[in-house]
Amino acid sequence: MIRLFVPDDLAAGSPVTLSAAQAHYLRDVMRRATGDDVALFNGRDGEWLSTIASIERKAVGVIPKRRTREQTPGVDLELVVALVKRARLETIVEKATELGVHRVRLAVTRFTQAERTNVERLTAIAVEAAEQTGRLDVPEVMGPAKLEAILKGWPADRALIFCDEAGDAPPILEAVTAPRERSRSGPGAEVESSARPLIRPGIRPATFSHEGRRAPTSGAVATSILIGPEGGFSAEERAFIRALSTVIPVSLGPRILRADTAAIAALSLWQAALGDWRP
Amino acid sequence: MIRLFVPDDLAAGSPVTLSAAQAHYLRDVMRRATGDDVALFNGRDGEWLSTIASIERKAVGVIPKRRTREQTPGVDLELVVALVKRARLETIVEKATELGVHRVRLAVTRFTQAERTNVERLTAIAVEAAEQTGRLDVPEVMGPAKLEAILKGWPADRALIFCDEAGDAPPILEAVTAPRERSRSGPGAEVESSARPLIRPGIRPATFSHEGRRAPTSGAVATSILIGPEGGFSAEERAFIRALSTVIPVSLGPRILRADTAAIAALSLWQAALGDWRP
Repeated sequence: MIRLFVPDDLAAGSPVTLSAAQAHYLRDVMRRATGDDVALFNGRDGEWLSTIASIERKAVGVIPKRRTREQTPGVDLELVVALVKRARLETIVEKATELGVHRVRLAVTRFTQAERTNVERLTAIAVEAAEQTGRLDVPEVMGPAKLEAILKGWPADRALIFCDEAGDAPPILEAVTAPRERSRSGPGAEVESSARPLIRPGIRPATFSHEGRRAPTSGAVATSILIGPEGGFSAEERAFIRALSTVIPVSLGPRILRADTAAIAALSLWQAALGDWRP
Repeated sequence: MIRLFVPDDLAAGSPVTLSAAQAHYLRDVMRRATGDDVALFNGRDGEWLSTIASIERKAVGVIPKRRTREQTPGVDLELVVALVKRARLETIVEKATELGVHRVRLAVTRFTQAERTNVERLTAIAVEAAEQTGRLDVPEVMGPAKLEAILKGWPADRALIFCDEAGDAPPILEAVTAPRERSRSGPGAEVESSARPLIRPGIRPATFSHEGRRAPTSGAVATSILIGPEGGFSAEERAFIRALSTVIPVSLGPRILRADTAAIAALSLWQAALGDWRP
């Protein structure tokens, strides 16, 4: 079943006109015809089984028939990633979408070479990935801002997982899971994040309601994951980041990872340990 | 420091002649000159701080000075991945190398469209990724074989983590960690992999010695991770895979992942929970 993201409200019987690109895709690439089914979603109204009502040269009309999935809140997981080369940035946005992030924020850091990127193109990649992965929403891609500006006034209730290449941070899985497990099993006391109250075992995944309010799940931990550029962070940046009260420095193993690998690994680990991959 | 993989034996004072491609890279791309340092590794003799002794038009000679890292065994982690499109397969080989796999095996399955790939090019990608990521060896890339042939006579002491999209497998992190944790916390009894003895909490990472013997670490679990094509496995293939005695079916969350995302996520999870990302 082809899934398409549309900006329109979705309700039974209310016709929706697809974009020219979607019309081309349905008609010329996928060879769909009047009467065929597609699924529509808009990030607000769930997923709708819909029927192609008309196919013109430039316009395709689709009519929602029946809601097949209710809109559910996603996890409040954000990726803050330094501007890296275009191909890797595109990979990161595609994968972050598949891995359920709520938002991708692009950061200009000391060692990034670029200050701008094509946010429109990255958003199009997020839309396509959301359609393919079965999400009911599309993550927001926020255009580049200086890292300092992003971190200034960091919310006291948002954990910042800092993927730190410098080598003295605890392994990510230890850092984000049970301190009691670690202290029970012995030498966990030196793990600096073990005492932080924001990441606890047995919490419910942090959720985000699509009306902009935090969903009222107890113990929810809104989280951002910070990935640096391939040259790493400067000493000043590291000091600034590690001074934040909600920071959780983590290490991603003994090898040097490219930025896209680090982003995918950290997001997967978070989803598996604390997010919507849990049973 | 530039790191280069060479096939030659490495010993103090024994000159090594680099390949034409490496010579071009050092001379024309990185602008190195006689007397500059590079690091060499060959998968057997550790890493050697070496000096460029001569730069000719086609040949660059390098002399190892001093071993800076001892060769250490890597984890016995293998990726078995269906032939997917070229760009994604190249991403998978690059990332699998960064994530420390010992070997990548390419599988032809019911829903793969290709039967061949350029193994030489994939190996070159693995070499480059190994140089960049700081490994002391290069993972082997094994040319395509039918999935059936790969699974026939599967070793009884090698776990096969089966990333199963069909939806009824337990979450990967539960499946590969402590069964006692899960039975203690309640409804873990129905998790079919919980009783399997091959994956246990507290084990030492599975290791592989570079002489081809399994390193004698107690509790070591050699593991392969199986990733299907984007169309998934056929019903027959799924039945065959799930009938293997060492199979551990796992799920990678509620969204559909592309093959490269699934491979990176599963490898990261294994390294974090059982492999060399552990403290």
